[in-house]
Amino acid sequence: MAPAGGPRAKKGILDRLDSGELVVGDGGFLFSLEKRGFVKAGLWTPEAVVEHPSAVRQLHTEFLRAGADVLQTFTFSASEDKMESKWEDVNAAACDLAREVADREDALVAGCLCQTSLYKYHKDETRIKNLFRLQLEVFVRKNVDFLIAEYFEHVEEAVWAVEVLREVGKPVAATMCIGPEGDMHDVTPGECAVKLARAGANIIGVNCRFGPWTSLQTMKLMKKGLGDSGLQAHLMMQCLGFHTPDCGKGGFVDLPEYPFGLEPRVATRWDIQKYAREAYNLGVRYIGGCCGFEPYHIRAIAEELAPERGFLPPASEKHGSWGSGLDMHTKPWIRARARREYWENLLPASGRPFCPSLSKPDA
Amino acid sequence: MAPAGGPRAKKGILDRLDSGELVVGDGGFLFSLEKRGFVKAGLWTPEAVVEHPSAVRQLHTEFLRAGADVLQTFTFSASEDKMESKWEDVNAAACDLAREVADREDALVAGCLCQTSLYKYHKDETRIKNLFRLQLEVFVRKNVDFLIAEYFEHVEEAVWAVEVLREVGKPVAATMCIGPEGDMHDVTPGECAVKLARAGANIIGVNCRFGPWTSLQTMKLMKKGLGDSGLQAHLMMQCLGFHTPDCGKGGFVDLPEYPFGLEPRVATRWDIQKYAREAYNLGVRYIGGCCGFEPYHIRAIAEELAPERGFLPPASEKHGSWGSGLDMHTKPWIRARARREYWENLLPASGRPFCPSLSKPDA
Amino acid sequence: MAPAGGPRAKKGILDRLDSGELVVGDGGFLFSLEKRGFVKAGLWTPEAVVEHPSAVRQLHTEFLRAGADVLQTFTFSASEDKMESKWEDVNAAACDLAREVADREDALVAGCLCQTSLYKYHKDETRIKNLFRLQLEVFVRKNVDFLIAEYFEHVEEAVWAVEVLREVGKPVAATMCIGPEGDMHDVTPGECAVKLARAGANIIGVNCRFGPWTSLQTMKLMKKGLGDSGLQAHLMMQCLGFHTPDCGKGGFVDLPEYPFGLEPRVATRWDIQKYAREAYNLGVRYIGGCCGFEPYHIRAIAEELAPERGFLPPASEKHGSWGSGLDMHTKPWIRARARREYWENLLPASGRPFCPSLSKPDA
Amino acid sequence: MAPAGGPRAKKGILDRLDSGELVVGDGGFLFSLEKRGFVKAGLWTPEAVVEHPSAVRQLHTEFLRAGADVLQTFTFSASEDKMESKWEDVNAAACDLAREVADREDALVAGCLCQTSLYKYHKDETRIKNLFRLQLEVFVRKNVDFLIAEYFEHVEEAVWAVEVLREVGKPVAATMCIGPEGDMHDVTPGECAVKLARAGANIIGVNCRFGPWTSLQTMKLMKKGLGDSGLQAHLMMQCLGFHTPDCGKGGFVDLPEYPFGLEPRVATRWDIQKYAREAYNLGVRYIGGCCGFEPYHIRAIAEELAPERGFLPPASEKHGSWGSGLDMHTKPWIRARARREYWENLLPASGRPFCPSLSKPDA
Repeated sequence: MAPAGGPRAKKGILDRLDSGELVVGDGGFLFSLEKRGFVKAGLWTPEAVVEHPSAVRQLHTEFLRAGADVLQTFTFSASEDKMESKWEDVNAAACDLAREVADREDALVAGCLCQTSLYKYHKDETRIKNLFRLQLEVFVRKNVDFLIAEYFEHVEEAVWAVEVLREVGKPVAATMCIGPEGDMHDVTPGECAVKLARAGANIIGVNCRFGPWTSLQTMKLMKKGLGDSGLQAHLMMQCLGFHTPDCGKGGFVDLPEYPFGLEPRVATRWDIQKYAREAYNLGVRYIGGCCGFEPYHIRAIAEELAPERGFLPPASEKHGSWGSGLDMHTKPWIRARARREYWENLLPASGRPFCPSLSKPDA
Repeated sequence: MAPAGGPRAKKGILDRLDSGELVVGDGGFLFSLEKRGFVKAGLWTPEAVVEHPSAVRQLHTEFLRAGADVLQTFTFSASEDKMESKWEDVNAAACDLAREVADREDALVAGCLCQTSLYKYHKDETRIKNLFRLQLEVFVRKNVDFLIAEYFEHVEEAVWAVEVLREVGKPVAATMCIGPEGDMHDVTPGECAVKLARAGANIIGVNCRFGPWTSLQTMKLMKKGLGDSGLQAHLMMQCLGFHTPDCGKGGFVDLPEYPFGLEPRVATRWDIQKYAREAYNLGVRYIGGCCGFEPYHIRAIAEELAPERGFLPPASEKHGSWGSGLDMHTKPWIRARARREYWENLLPASGRPFCPSLSKPDA
Repeated sequence: MAPAGGPRAKKGILDRLDSGELVVGDGGFLFSLEKRGFVKAGLWTPEAVVEHPSAVRQLHTEFLRAGADVLQTFTFSASEDKMESKWEDVNAAACDLAREVADREDALVAGCLCQTSLYKYHKDETRIKNLFRLQLEVFVRKNVDFLIAEYFEHVEEAVWAVEVLREVGKPVAATMCIGPEGDMHDVTPGECAVKLARAGANIIGVNCRFGPWTSLQTMKLMKKGLGDSGLQAHLMMQCLGFHTPDCGKGGFVDLPEYPFGLEPRVATRWDIQKYAREAYNLGVRYIGGCCGFEPYHIRAIAEELAPERGFLPPASEKHGSWGSGLDMHTKPWIRARARREYWENLLPASGRPFCPSLSKPDA
Repeated sequence: MAPAGGPRAKKGILDRLDSGELVVGDGGFLFSLEKRGFVKAGLWTPEAVVEHPSAVRQLHTEFLRAGADVLQTFTFSASEDKMESKWEDVNAAACDLAREVADREDALVAGCLCQTSLYKYHKDETRIKNLFRLQLEVFVRKNVDFLIAEYFEHVEEAVWAVEVLREVGKPVAATMCIGPEGDMHDVTPGECAVKLARAGANIIGVNCRFGPWTSLQTMKLMKKGLGDSGLQAHLMMQCLGFHTPDCGKGGFVDLPEYPFGLEPRVATRWDIQKYAREAYNLGVRYIGGCCGFEPYHIRAIAEELAPERGFLPPASEKHGSWGSGLDMHTKPWIRARARREYWENLLPASGRPFCPSLSKPDA
């Protein structure tokens, strides 16, 4: 019999990646649930898992249906330093919700933790590592399939996280929220990747803070850093669903539109198909999204890479590839949009003639 | 005792409007559920109510929580001419879902139908009215609180719908998907409003196809038409959550971005607060949204008009008014965004320097 | 023998227009000479004719060479109320300069006056008419070929100007600096045209303040007004060389970019070819430009309408039509631009990603 | 006694730069005269000096009046390989025109040559150097004050030009038309500067092909290259008057707008003031412009750096600094524009809502 909370016979994350399979990640919980009314911007804590579990379950369901192979526990910032006594219930409930939905299909559950609020003030390795261990204990008890350390802006803290997560024998992914300029201490993306690999991370990459094109640049630098050092690791990208060509080193939080005016930057599904293809061509095999990624963006990854995977995601039953669902429209000019060239080449207007294309970041 | 399916003691839609209350509508199901993976663009039919009831229930829940006073049955295009034999189950299930959620609070259920696919080909009044009657019978059996005829581009067909809906004694709202240029036969918004009022509609206005600012123009013309004719009706607006200053007479369907590239046009919550205030100042007392309106947009209406209503919606527990949730942010330049002036004056960038502001409609 | 200052045998302006000839006007002196360093923005007075006659002669030469059939005396604002005692020398020198250059070819000289600074403060018909008569006397003495009353924002004052100019028996053109909303007292463009025709203007139209597309709208309304009243007059357009879709009633002076930040709005030669064609199709037969029109814009009018005129202007020796001069370029992608479709369809980028497309006028 | 053609007592270019004086260059002849009707795009040859000398004289006059300390002979592409037998007359006439105007003030005449059309096909050093010598002989005969080798995209050819120009004992400036990516053979800007300095160029920098901000980046790299090699040279910038943030290595010729749709990219006078200040702060002491620089742009350099120079240029008589000429305007909202903060912070709209901000270069 399978252990409690774990399905029999699921292929593990490393087995999948080692055998060359593409792994589709899930999208962003904080921004999606903020717009649905269950998360508060600014705090960005996941108390929704206990307050509104059906909303969280629904979003897991949508990402699964969109093609996600991994459901991340909604435990971002669910550490003791940010949620006080609530933290333990939240982590446990988040694991249960992700597991419940993941087991409807062949998806894996990843236990996730992120940078602490302490690091910026006092870089106390022992104290910070203990914070990580608190969340890790829940992940182990709930028997998640693997672990993700994500959203680190200082590579030193990310290395500590990897070192802690490595203690329990599960595969470990580590993603940093950095751009091509590197971490907050000017460690380059290539050096960051090397440090994470040396700390034992099996899967390495970037998440959040920068849009698809900028993140692909960062990823190239990480890949080159690993290659130059003769190190090997699987590559992973979970970038923003927002276009951010104007970001400085701090990423989208420094843009004047953050977090309540980012709408005009939201990527179309076609943008995401291009991103998925470029990430794949770069050798990234774990491709998902972060803030701004709604279920249809994850579906776009799964559809773009359906030839490589060999199947379409369940949600494609409601999506004709490349707009083909429009081919029965009564208006001929709308029927004319039911083709790949149309959507690949569309340069969508903003409908905002008084607004610029780019912003100057605040910092 | 209250009839089955109806709550005791809820104040009816006309009682509310007659007493000067503001009624907050809900947002768009088709576009929201398309992005969540449950509706197919092009067909735009609501089979999700039977295929994925939990997804529909969740969206009703979110709109209720965002402040909606009315939950519309998700029965858009759920007529026999578009859904064949499925239509009856879909209408019945949609009523049950809306009722289940509405009764958690003091919300009303509105049974909704829209224009037929027949009218464009043969304007057979009897046959079309019979189609309307089929849906109406379900709405009566399920005892919805009132009725909405929405998304009509020909006022003649809208009048037929109103005439049918009036047969059962429930209040009737009628909204047309037209812009300032009027209906597809060049009947002006003012004339349309007059015809709808004369047909017996209690509540009159616009929905879909045009963004907030364009729809406010249409609404002004409707109001003037009614006033010039000495007619009285409550006014209702449920416009798009997309900016469409470049639309021609046909509205957003003719824009090259429709339906898969509209992201840069999505309204911010601040845009919607301005829309709600202007609509209110114009005398509109039933204010909601259509395609592109997500739960947070409905919350923006409820928050903007909270002083008039006297209360905030439940979802405001997760939303500091005017960005106030940012006031504890560690970065001072982000804290500086925690104020009304900041968001009111923000001109959000698109992050798309290769894209224009406006498009040329295809027709 | 011809009178001093007039060439023998030149066909008059009305003979040309009556026989169906197209008359190409000249472009803007104030803005061109401001950028060359000879006119001061704000005052916008033409003392350059006495201070720097070679600069004025050169610009006349360039417009003539570009295809202008009429050289306007550079006497904008050269009335006693704006230039005090300098006014008489300026008017006389301006006539001489225009005549000197015009007589190199078959071009006509038009004596030009514009609205006074008095009208806004006290609408003293006698005093204002006497101001006009002062300039007129110089024009008569210098024997200009015809007269233009231009840049009037109040139709009443324009009518007074026409009445004065009619006194000397020369043909009179009258153009107002208004948009589709009409003059500063809400007299519609159609009514303005009717009043000017009834006052005796032979040629009627618009100049300055609005860009090509907006001015074409105004012109359509003027033409309709004349037609509805059964009046006949030749039509004339000398719009801005700037795109101003965002202008309110006051025109470009109210835009925040006026007058020192208008560069991104400057029309391309291809924009002007479209304008010339549309004006021609509307029935306008006197087509020129105002502020923002450089010599190459006038050449674009003459080139677009070369088939109708039967000849190209002298300056076309330095301009291959539709970019054909690029066909010998060494780079193939630049050679590929040597064709009409390329330039007709180009949507030129601003190179300014932090700037919007439209501005909000200040008034 | 001074030699014929040279004024007594003018301070030479190196004396000026060595003593720390700022030298203001002139602007672009080809683009300015193309718009005035005297130069043909595509060929870009200066036959206007013999065909229309008054047009060339006028433009020299305007640049002088705008504050230029140097008048360049209009001899761009006036080599035998591009102009055949005409070349000699053109070079001689160009020297005479520049000298005639320069001697009205304290300005210097620079004899200018640019890259050949041969280099791309066969890098025959002897033949190319002989071509340079042909022009140089005229410059020597006409006794220009110094020499400029400009618009080189291959540093090797630029070095050959410097070596030839050095033969006659006059000061030599050398500017390359490259961006931050370096020359067409991937020689970096720093290396280019070093090679030019080692070849004997006294003044080194960039001209043409890239707008102000991009060119400042290139200039920084050149300065660093010189500094790292322990070499010294005066720095010189004569960039485009167009914004080109979207240019690739080839510069603005590869933009789809080149050369007939660049209008929306034209810099304002305020943009140029910022450029002049930044160039000055970087240590550049010879600051002028190239294509797109009209006289008012040169005046903007002279006005921005008037505190450093100690005087305003003659053309400032027609220009109130920072828009101060508007302070007497009758409309208060236009008066409100008569201040530095206003124009410094203006983000000018393009008036082109259907056009993007940036273009994709063709190569």
